[in-house]
Amino acid sequence: MAAIDRVGRNLYAFVVHKFAIGVFGASGYAGRELCELVARHPGARLAFATANDRQGAHARFGGEDVTFVAAEDARLGDAQLVFSALPHGASARWVGAAHDAGAKVVDLSADLRPGNGYGSGAEDFASAMAHAPYGLTEHARAMVRGAEIVANPGCYPTVTLLALLPLVERGLVAPGATITVNAASGVTGAGMTPKRELMFAEVADDFRPYAIGNSHRHLAEMRAMLTSLGSDADLIFTPHLLPVARGILATITVPLAEPLVDVLAPWTEHYAGEPFIEVSATIPSLKDVVHRNVVRITATMAEGVRAPTVIVVAAIDNLMKGAAGQALQNANLLLGLEETMGLPV
Amino acid sequence: MAAIDRVGRNLYAFVVHKFAIGVFGASGYAGRELCELVARHPGARLAFATANDRQGAHARFGGEDVTFVAAEDARLGDAQLVFSALPHGASARWVGAAHDAGAKVVDLSADLRPGNGYGSGAEDFASAMAHAPYGLTEHARAMVRGAEIVANPGCYPTVTLLALLPLVERGLVAPGATITVNAASGVTGAGMTPKRELMFAEVADDFRPYAIGNSHRHLAEMRAMLTSLGSDADLIFTPHLLPVARGILATITVPLAEPLVDVLAPWTEHYAGEPFIEVSATIPSLKDVVHRNVVRITATMAEGVRAPTVIVVAAIDNLMKGAAGQALQNANLLLGLEETMGLPV
Amino acid sequence: MAAIDRVGRNLYAFVVHKFAIGVFGASGYAGRELCELVARHPGARLAFATANDRQGAHARFGGEDVTFVAAEDARLGDAQLVFSALPHGASARWVGAAHDAGAKVVDLSADLRPGNGYGSGAEDFASAMAHAPYGLTEHARAMVRGAEIVANPGCYPTVTLLALLPLVERGLVAPGATITVNAASGVTGAGMTPKRELMFAEVADDFRPYAIGNSHRHLAEMRAMLTSLGSDADLIFTPHLLPVARGILATITVPLAEPLVDVLAPWTEHYAGEPFIEVSATIPSLKDVVHRNVVRITATMAEGVRAPTVIVVAAIDNLMKGAAGQALQNANLLLGLEETMGLPV
Amino acid sequence: MAAIDRVGRNLYAFVVHKFAIGVFGASGYAGRELCELVARHPGARLAFATANDRQGAHARFGGEDVTFVAAEDARLGDAQLVFSALPHGASARWVGAAHDAGAKVVDLSADLRPGNGYGSGAEDFASAMAHAPYGLTEHARAMVRGAEIVANPGCYPTVTLLALLPLVERGLVAPGATITVNAASGVTGAGMTPKRELMFAEVADDFRPYAIGNSHRHLAEMRAMLTSLGSDADLIFTPHLLPVARGILATITVPLAEPLVDVLAPWTEHYAGEPFIEVSATIPSLKDVVHRNVVRITATMAEGVRAPTVIVVAAIDNLMKGAAGQALQNANLLLGLEETMGLPV
Repeated sequence: MAAIDRVGRNLYAFVVHKFAIGVFGASGYAGRELCELVARHPGARLAFATANDRQGAHARFGGEDVTFVAAEDARLGDAQLVFSALPHGASARWVGAAHDAGAKVVDLSADLRPGNGYGSGAEDFASAMAHAPYGLTEHARAMVRGAEIVANPGCYPTVTLLALLPLVERGLVAPGATITVNAASGVTGAGMTPKRELMFAEVADDFRPYAIGNSHRHLAEMRAMLTSLGSDADLIFTPHLLPVARGILATITVPLAEPLVDVLAPWTEHYAGEPFIEVSATIPSLKDVVHRNVVRITATMAEGVRAPTVIVVAAIDNLMKGAAGQALQNANLLLGLEETMGLPV
Repeated sequence: MAAIDRVGRNLYAFVVHKFAIGVFGASGYAGRELCELVARHPGARLAFATANDRQGAHARFGGEDVTFVAAEDARLGDAQLVFSALPHGASARWVGAAHDAGAKVVDLSADLRPGNGYGSGAEDFASAMAHAPYGLTEHARAMVRGAEIVANPGCYPTVTLLALLPLVERGLVAPGATITVNAASGVTGAGMTPKRELMFAEVADDFRPYAIGNSHRHLAEMRAMLTSLGSDADLIFTPHLLPVARGILATITVPLAEPLVDVLAPWTEHYAGEPFIEVSATIPSLKDVVHRNVVRITATMAEGVRAPTVIVVAAIDNLMKGAAGQALQNANLLLGLEETMGLPV
Repeated sequence: MAAIDRVGRNLYAFVVHKFAIGVFGASGYAGRELCELVARHPGARLAFATANDRQGAHARFGGEDVTFVAAEDARLGDAQLVFSALPHGASARWVGAAHDAGAKVVDLSADLRPGNGYGSGAEDFASAMAHAPYGLTEHARAMVRGAEIVANPGCYPTVTLLALLPLVERGLVAPGATITVNAASGVTGAGMTPKRELMFAEVADDFRPYAIGNSHRHLAEMRAMLTSLGSDADLIFTPHLLPVARGILATITVPLAEPLVDVLAPWTEHYAGEPFIEVSATIPSLKDVVHRNVVRITATMAEGVRAPTVIVVAAIDNLMKGAAGQALQNANLLLGLEETMGLPV
Repeated sequence: MAAIDRVGRNLYAFVVHKFAIGVFGASGYAGRELCELVARHPGARLAFATANDRQGAHARFGGEDVTFVAAEDARLGDAQLVFSALPHGASARWVGAAHDAGAKVVDLSADLRPGNGYGSGAEDFASAMAHAPYGLTEHARAMVRGAEIVANPGCYPTVTLLALLPLVERGLVAPGATITVNAASGVTGAGMTPKRELMFAEVADDFRPYAIGNSHRHLAEMRAMLTSLGSDADLIFTPHLLPVARGILATITVPLAEPLVDVLAPWTEHYAGEPFIEVSATIPSLKDVVHRNVVRITATMAEGVRAPTVIVVAAIDNLMKGAAGQALQNANLLLGLEETMGLPV
């Protein structure tokens, strides 16, 4: 029934009527990616695109000319769904406004994510999820489908949590373990505001960690999610800046309760049939995932160590599966469309 | 007395007579770097440079024209010291030949390193060291000074061991700990032989781990060294390929017996006065170390975890402190010269 | 009538039957791009993909698994159209074999291009065109439509000739002029065979011209084309190697018979309605064209010089409009499909 | 006599007393390079380094810690020579102040260069030169030696003029010729002020011309210099932005009065004995010149054209020979030191 209804909605969107989508914060890297995806989406069209610092400027998305407007001038009533790619802190207010105006909303900021505004205890997590489910789609598909507002996960949490979920949900992580996450991101992850340390001559030929010692803001939502699943594992998360434009790769070391015999089995079983998850014995690299809404995962047991430990490697495009792509995946669910519609694989 | 003698030797080398140095395997990245360092060294000159696949070809080092010869045609008797930058397996033979001809030798291959030809037990380590000390200079300075042959450490082991030594030697590592080493290297670390996966269009915009699961050949010498110091820690070592030409950065997670109060103290104390070791609260990056014979180290305690854990970040230039620079540092000691002579800081 | 027929063929290809396409030389950069385009083409499917040095190896194109076969093992009879991305010299033989087996052929090598096998005189040009039209599609659309075999232009000639045609065909170039073409290409233009000078550490951070003094092989087809149009202009063509994977940008200086009043008019008029040509007052850059089958062109009169001179800047993706994309554009014409079908804009 | 005096001054500077050098605008790319060169110069030391936007910040030059001060707080009286790397327009005032305080000055801005403040006629040129010679050192060595203030040439003019001088001074350029200069620069040439178009993700993988149609500010000094030498040639100058940090390469097309028989002879003869000019049949690339104070030049006659034309290719490091290195070369002359002192070759 639901499937038939979805087919119907898809056909309707494709043939009769494209859903009207608004984008707040459309001039940043994630915002531009959203506009491009919407413009090329067979069942959607761009209703408005806001960029307060560039209002009146033109941009081309999907071959169409678009004029940026101020957020204040966005005609909220025109949009059936709104994405917010506004900065943390500035987003929640516009999410509320769009929702009040009748739109469904996907918020790409951290404002509504668990562990941020909503604390990190189990109760806080539940109440955050009730208000705005944490849209790690493969984990929260059913909740997203029934929601009005979705808190889209951060880029680092997306790749980390998708890599860890099969181990955590199957209870395979050693009790009291410390999980070590080393991740490296392309510079679009740092946004488009001009800063000296992001200029070409500063980033090229270089590589460096930042926020070492567990001071990155994304830890909160990763911890909140693991806690909500009953895990007692600690995380040590060290992000690095890569001299590339796009992509995140995470190398994750997980102490296990006991060795895995079939090392890929937790992932192949957990993610069977998932259209955007690729589990493979081949080591993933950024080239495999950029411009695609997928995560690629491999895993290998560490040789020559006493404590059984698996090394999981996962890669995503930080602007696609780590931001705009996953946001559209959630939006498709909110609108009752095929989850894969308009998403590059 | 030794100091006076060293001053004398330095003056002699500088004013009267430059030591004659031969380089085997001079056309690879490490070999070229060695030739350049020797050619600019105030107390040395290049006696010969071999490159079997490019014999007869010309190259410029330090502004001088040099003609590559075949290894067979190298006049071993002319050199007081020889570097071998030949590939693993091919090097030991020429190290022996040069030594038989009366030269001191620094071998940059893995052939004589502990854990390779010599096994990895404690006894093997001792016998390897007696034959050819493992030239991690800051650790083995005295042994190097009295040696005939030095086994120059690999690039990854250099950065990893220099980062870990202060913790290991002070007994600060938690008993039975698993130390996680995530390291990333520029492509010159993979050598100069043309391979499809090292071409520009394959490496640019990409990032990927390799040899995951503890299968990298450099683990042997790292483990041998830690074992020789009485450590029972396990290592999980995951190397990555960076889209840069030079530099290695290692992010190392070490479970500790108890928290460090002054987190940098183990390194500042252990390395006090070392000319090539820079300990700093600032996070190092490749830019800080390329073209310099230094290692830069920082450390931070992980927040929000139950098991006290320190994150150590260390960076080197893989061709300098990780290969040719450290080799020259050892050569200076073998020749009785100032350890810093001719080395860029 | 032709239009109706084309609509019919498109519908047929889309709904009933996809054209079977073979690719010779499928493991190089252009060959892989061709396979990817064919696999995603709504009216085509991949019949075979040859790669003599990698036969039996697997690759994924458009989400499908493909096994490379040897050219000798390709079932020529299965394909209605064949692309050859074989090296110069090796291609003509397989073009002939495919044609004999009944397929239409687009040859991406230089073997059949004017100025190569066929000399460069006007008669030679005509006879070359009769046998296998030089498929600069926007110039030779009608001839391509009626042909059996098309000689697909080189990457540098494509960008250069599309930039120059409006000036040449309108007789705007100064009589006896010397046209200066400085072009720079990403390294995929140099092919995928591993060579020392194409390795990452050699190309990164570098920039250099090659074949200076008019010794590049692509000059022949550029001159042949200009001569065929009655132009007496000389060309000075200097290619450069860029530290990027994809894209070509040409900066072309053209002495004019008299100043252009509306400097863009020759191009906007000449290319009115062309789906793959973008003329703009904005200066093009590689980012505007990579992964797209377009050429972007701008032009500006030089200030402060006595001889009226226009500077034309044009950019393409060397693997798309400069190779696989234009080849598919020609293939669509040969098969009677919409010219734009399956081509990214 | 002068030579003996210079030897004396060099010895004095080296052994007894290092010249005190001030740097205005020390936090930009050229300013930092100047500070590094001064700190490592055997006959000089850094007296002060100004950076108005970063006053109080620390930097390390030549292993020494330096604190930036505001220009207003610089103790002008302490410096025997001052470099100004301040922006165009802001520099002249501080050049005057330093000169009034008794220092010799090398100004790296355009403020005092011919064709800028001083117009571009022959008389203007002479009066500009009398006030502050245009310090293209190999051309103006004698004038620089006797000067108080030197206007250091721009990066593009340095490489272009050094490439053209031998042809122009020998009268080899065709009368009334249009010389075409296509040059490409690394992004440090655009300064260190954060701008969106200079961020890593905007510059990487891209290549684009700018200021096309002869609108680049550096044309003025190039034209002024050529005019002062009696040349009537027109210039068409098109700069490009490269995705590299450092280096400029210029490809220059010059119509000649008649063909060159020995194509390199004009350069080898004109620059015989010059320590910083390398003429070679090998095509230069950025790798040959970065971090070195040299220009590398080659030349080739164009084949297959009626008008005899030579293609000259020249490369420099924009921050060394194109800015700080040439500035120090001039400073050495102003101070009576060896011209090559402290300069990397």
